Amino acid sequence: MAQMMKAAIFVEPNRIVLDDKPIPDVGPLDALVRITTTTICGTDVHILKGEYPVARGLTIGHEPVGVIEKLGSSVAGYREGQRVIAGAITPSGHSAACLCGCASQDGAGTRHGFKPLGGWRFGNTIDGAQAEYLLVPDAMVNLTPIPDGLDDEQVLMCPDIMSTGFSGAERGQVRLGDTVAVFAQGPIGLCATAGARLMGATTIISVDSVPARMDISRRMGADHVVDFSRVDPVEEILRLTDGRGVDVAIEALGRQATFEAALRVLRPGGTLSSLGVYSADLKIPLDAFLAGLGDYTIVTTLCPGGKERMRRLMEVIAAGRLDTRPLVTHRFRLDQIEEAYALFANQRDGVLKVAITP
Amino acid sequence: MAQMMKAAIFVEPNRIVLDDKPIPDVGPLDALVRITTTTICGTDVHILKGEYPVARGLTIGHEPVGVIEKLGSSVAGYREGQRVIAGAITPSGHSAACLCGCASQDGAGTRHGFKPLGGWRFGNTIDGAQAEYLLVPDAMVNLTPIPDGLDDEQVLMCPDIMSTGFSGAERGQVRLGDTVAVFAQGPIGLCATAGARLMGATTIISVDSVPARMDISRRMGADHVVDFSRVDPVEEILRLTDGRGVDVAIEALGRQATFEAALRVLRPGGTLSSLGVYSADLKIPLDAFLAGLGDYTIVTTLCPGGKERMRRLMEVIAAGRLDTRPLVTHRFRLDQIEEAYALFANQRDGVLKVAITP
Amino acid sequence: MAQMMKAAIFVEPNRIVLDDKPIPDVGPLDALVRITTTTICGTDVHILKGEYPVARGLTIGHEPVGVIEKLGSSVAGYREGQRVIAGAITPSGHSAACLCGCASQDGAGTRHGFKPLGGWRFGNTIDGAQAEYLLVPDAMVNLTPIPDGLDDEQVLMCPDIMSTGFSGAERGQVRLGDTVAVFAQGPIGLCATAGARLMGATTIISVDSVPARMDISRRMGADHVVDFSRVDPVEEILRLTDGRGVDVAIEALGRQATFEAALRVLRPGGTLSSLGVYSADLKIPLDAFLAGLGDYTIVTTLCPGGKERMRRLMEVIAAGRLDTRPLVTHRFRLDQIEEAYALFANQRDGVLKVAITP
Amino acid sequence: MAQMMKAAIFVEPNRIVLDDKPIPDVGPLDALVRITTTTICGTDVHILKGEYPVARGLTIGHEPVGVIEKLGSSVAGYREGQRVIAGAITPSGHSAACLCGCASQDGAGTRHGFKPLGGWRFGNTIDGAQAEYLLVPDAMVNLTPIPDGLDDEQVLMCPDIMSTGFSGAERGQVRLGDTVAVFAQGPIGLCATAGARLMGATTIISVDSVPARMDISRRMGADHVVDFSRVDPVEEILRLTDGRGVDVAIEALGRQATFEAALRVLRPGGTLSSLGVYSADLKIPLDAFLAGLGDYTIVTTLCPGGKERMRRLMEVIAAGRLDTRPLVTHRFRLDQIEEAYALFANQRDGVLKVAITP
Repeated sequence: MAQMMKAAIFVEPNRIVLDDKPIPDVGPLDALVRITTTTICGTDVHILKGEYPVARGLTIGHEPVGVIEKLGSSVAGYREGQRVIAGAITPSGHSAACLCGCASQDGAGTRHGFKPLGGWRFGNTIDGAQAEYLLVPDAMVNLTPIPDGLDDEQVLMCPDIMSTGFSGAERGQVRLGDTVAVFAQGPIGLCATAGARLMGATTIISVDSVPARMDISRRMGADHVVDFSRVDPVEEILRLTDGRGVDVAIEALGRQATFEAALRVLRPGGTLSSLGVYSADLKIPLDAFLAGLGDYTIVTTLCPGGKERMRRLMEVIAAGRLDTRPLVTHRFRLDQIEEAYALFANQRDGVLKVAITP
Repeated sequence: MAQMMKAAIFVEPNRIVLDDKPIPDVGPLDALVRITTTTICGTDVHILKGEYPVARGLTIGHEPVGVIEKLGSSVAGYREGQRVIAGAITPSGHSAACLCGCASQDGAGTRHGFKPLGGWRFGNTIDGAQAEYLLVPDAMVNLTPIPDGLDDEQVLMCPDIMSTGFSGAERGQVRLGDTVAVFAQGPIGLCATAGARLMGATTIISVDSVPARMDISRRMGADHVVDFSRVDPVEEILRLTDGRGVDVAIEALGRQATFEAALRVLRPGGTLSSLGVYSADLKIPLDAFLAGLGDYTIVTTLCPGGKERMRRLMEVIAAGRLDTRPLVTHRFRLDQIEEAYALFANQRDGVLKVAITP
Repeated sequence: MAQMMKAAIFVEPNRIVLDDKPIPDVGPLDALVRITTTTICGTDVHILKGEYPVARGLTIGHEPVGVIEKLGSSVAGYREGQRVIAGAITPSGHSAACLCGCASQDGAGTRHGFKPLGGWRFGNTIDGAQAEYLLVPDAMVNLTPIPDGLDDEQVLMCPDIMSTGFSGAERGQVRLGDTVAVFAQGPIGLCATAGARLMGATTIISVDSVPARMDISRRMGADHVVDFSRVDPVEEILRLTDGRGVDVAIEALGRQATFEAALRVLRPGGTLSSLGVYSADLKIPLDAFLAGLGDYTIVTTLCPGGKERMRRLMEVIAAGRLDTRPLVTHRFRLDQIEEAYALFANQRDGVLKVAITP
Repeated sequence: MAQMMKAAIFVEPNRIVLDDKPIPDVGPLDALVRITTTTICGTDVHILKGEYPVARGLTIGHEPVGVIEKLGSSVAGYREGQRVIAGAITPSGHSAACLCGCASQDGAGTRHGFKPLGGWRFGNTIDGAQAEYLLVPDAMVNLTPIPDGLDDEQVLMCPDIMSTGFSGAERGQVRLGDTVAVFAQGPIGLCATAGARLMGATTIISVDSVPARMDISRRMGADHVVDFSRVDPVEEILRLTDGRGVDVAIEALGRQATFEAALRVLRPGGTLSSLGVYSADLKIPLDAFLAGLGDYTIVTTLCPGGKERMRRLMEVIAAGRLDTRPLVTHRFRLDQIEEAYALFANQRDGVLKVAITP
């Protein structure tokens, strides 16, 4: 008979509960990871609220830090007991999407190898990380050992927050000497700010209104922090750039207002790098779009995954280039996860990210 | 006293007339070009209708083919009597925009060197090409000799139509073996089709409904031509690609319907390359946008200009890789230009492009 | 007891013989392919001559066309009886090299995931394709179904020759309107010529001295073919380009003379794309290198592999953009392979490529 | 009669002397700059020694910081009295090379618009900066105002040292999380180290043997500094990277030993970014080159110039991202320049760079 474990399960809209589930069997390409730390993502709150549909009974969560408990029969290059992380996105390594450098849209098993958001499996199409154990598919593509000397909380942002945030700067092709605006300084926006800084932007302007987030924004690398509750952020960014506008604008919220503001602060020929998860149609105003003649680039990105991505992100931490621990504001045991959801979903008590430890 | 010339002048909305104007003086960096052939662009029709505002009295037109009549005192490397073209966009060569590889947004003379659409001067901010003579600014950046053996009509599409159309494929980063859709097969869309073909796309699907355009589309390189008046183009493109979608979708009309269809036929991770001049706000439907998580890239482009660009385009013609003469469906003398506008603005008689010869 | 098959085996330098070998067992991620057509590569001749060391007893060959005989237990998305090809390079899909877009240097199983030439397994580190059956590792990364309507010889160049040749143009970043030189018009050089043509080069100058190759070169897309036995190719290319030089020079032989000539015909800022397998140290002459100040780019490439690459190449064939059948000059049965090696290794009878059918 | 000024003039090999010269006339596109600070470059020492030939009587020097004294009649956008710098490379803005993004090989006035090293004019083909006054050609392409608050020494490295050094990292396409080696820590190598750091490299290994340079290297961003006089740098870098090798190796000396070592520490698929000025043929060892099959990229770069480049570099300084003042180890008046050459040419007294003030 299967051994049982605790897992945070989606029951129905507005109900994620901790329940018993069998510890999963390990297929030839899988690894079973004992979770030591995980966290809750904004996406999980969308799931909780029923805004993003998942199967009832699914274990939620896509940000695992843990220890290899058991390796599949075909998995080489790892050992049980190794401390590892896996990305929120777990590409197969063999779909056309993967082989095109677009692994987050992994369509393994589909006719043509592309599937919208297909690389996002944990807590979406397969059981996720808010549990005592997690089955990691295609383990050889997805598991990365944690460098010696880094503790769980130091790498907890790598699977999603830091990977997504950094990708905002990377896909925006931030260059040495660029001026960059980052709209919204939640965890992902904060990491976008840090990414822009690490890639050499020399004027970084972030936008938020929560004082604690504005403070951390400066620590993450912002040169100017604009409080949109006090000033119009478009006007203020144009003022701060002496009317020039920015080379790259990063959207990290998923709203019309921020998307549109990001477009309006771009210099002609600039790039809008969008990270937000939108929940409504977007409008592109004709004037802000220069009627289609502005040589603009708009890119969207779903969190890059895979073990090499995770290795690089942990290198950034290990090398002391960035410390994401200030983003972890609250800590809970797995058996307190319903309480953690209540806090996080309502953005109480200045929460940025919570650490959950089984 | 200044010598006079004939020029097509914007008088007021719905009135472009041929009138007398002084032949312009030649500044140190300018060249005076005697126009031998020019044409009318869709943008000129917007000007005619008063939809795009220009100064009253301005000479219209931005597609010059001619002969150097006189060179400015600081212009070296050319000789009078040389047959030349200049691009529709005439960058200064010295703005920040130019030095950033974004010359169409040339902001010469502005504080930061970027100006929306600033590179478009002919028939917009300075007198244009529908005249007996044209003053070309920054001549050393903008004049390209016509290769021996090419006649005027062979290169008439280079200044705008072919440069813009090709840029749709180039900015879309079409790669060997790509599947590409091109929405609308007017002159620019036809050149986008040709550009995709020349860059190695192996499945090119164009969309239009005018039989003559659909015929030329096949000659320009389309593998499939979809008649949107008979079938839903999104469904048909998905059918033709067996449900996969396209790697690159090129929009060449400037309408919500084509923009949206271009987005809907993209595979996840694909690129929408927009060439159209829009006249209203655009909507990005949430589902087509995969809520911002589709790893999409959307690029817009204003016709690339400059002498090196023109040299490359004429090389394409000279090498026999493309013949754009089928796009020239009608011919007029400059003194018939009002008649030419009437035909072209109303898209009568299957017109694609007209050749105007002073 | 294992069933036996015929295979071309490396016995010792200068001896590749056809011998009996067990049909291999199929592991969970493998596929067994019954070879219907294969060929001999120049690299195989290096192996034959003992210049490139492989294990005694190894089956040679890395260019398989065949039919799926049996699928491993974990392989999904294929069916037995399907006609397929695999690339000469068979990446694992899960090494760091693969996840970095550098799959030919696949270091699956190594500490850091990079291994020089590690993606080249067939006929190098594992049994190859000159046999009745071939075991394809990581089948889901490497098998591509052959499009309906294409026969074996139409796709026989895809696994190596066309993939390598095209990569010369791709890695050289050939652009619309480029001038390109291709040094040596063996099978790979011919495909480099075709690749440059398909990507939009408008002046393509190839170099060889064998009349039959020079003829095919024109059919593959060369605008000018220089006979280096009659004229100095550097001088001739500079003459043909009116002293300008080329944007991209592709080296397809692997010799000092061609490498150096490729460098000498580059315009400043140009790209040398090297495909040749060298057998001695190279010299970069100081003057040709502009003392290191010429803004040159030199790239080398090992044949790109993987199923998506193969799909794209076969699309090029299926779309009628290129026909590589003229490269197949001779045909042999597998039991004549020793005779085929004798012909091919000595470049007798104008041989370009041979088709071998078990 | 022309007013006279002091200038450092090349008389013959081993003789650069301070002499009187007329203050140059200002053509329509020029600006006359009164030099307030300049410096001596390693290239100037090559000129001094007669290793790099220039015309007798030429004023040497290509690193100007100064004040606009007079503007040409066609120059707009500046005002006399403005503090400015110009790059060592002064592109015309209108050559084919400039319009191709390869401005350092500017061939203004040549048939095809490319000329080896053609963008390098100061102290090479026209009078240079080691003088009281400097005539800047194509002033609108080349002059950048110095941001308020920055003194001369803060921006003195921008025209050449920082532009060249940073380009080593930029052309090497250093990415977040890369491992980078930089060979030689003279002023340019130090700026390459800083550039790699600013672009997000997480393991930076520099190589030198002079203790003072090794110290500054750490301050500029090196994580490890290898003393090649004590250990074999290739072995040590492989040891420090646990056998993996580096993603990008930057050569900043111009010698066979460093070029070869840079190649030997690359991981397969890595990039060698070469900045050095070589004085002899280079050898590429067959094994280090993986016989041409390593998917390597080798790039060389001549100092990028132009006003936008200078603006970005000064932004890096103004934003506090880098302080290059530690590179200025000695200060001289212009009338002491012969003494400065004696010190700098013989690398006495730990000199890195000298500041020369007229």
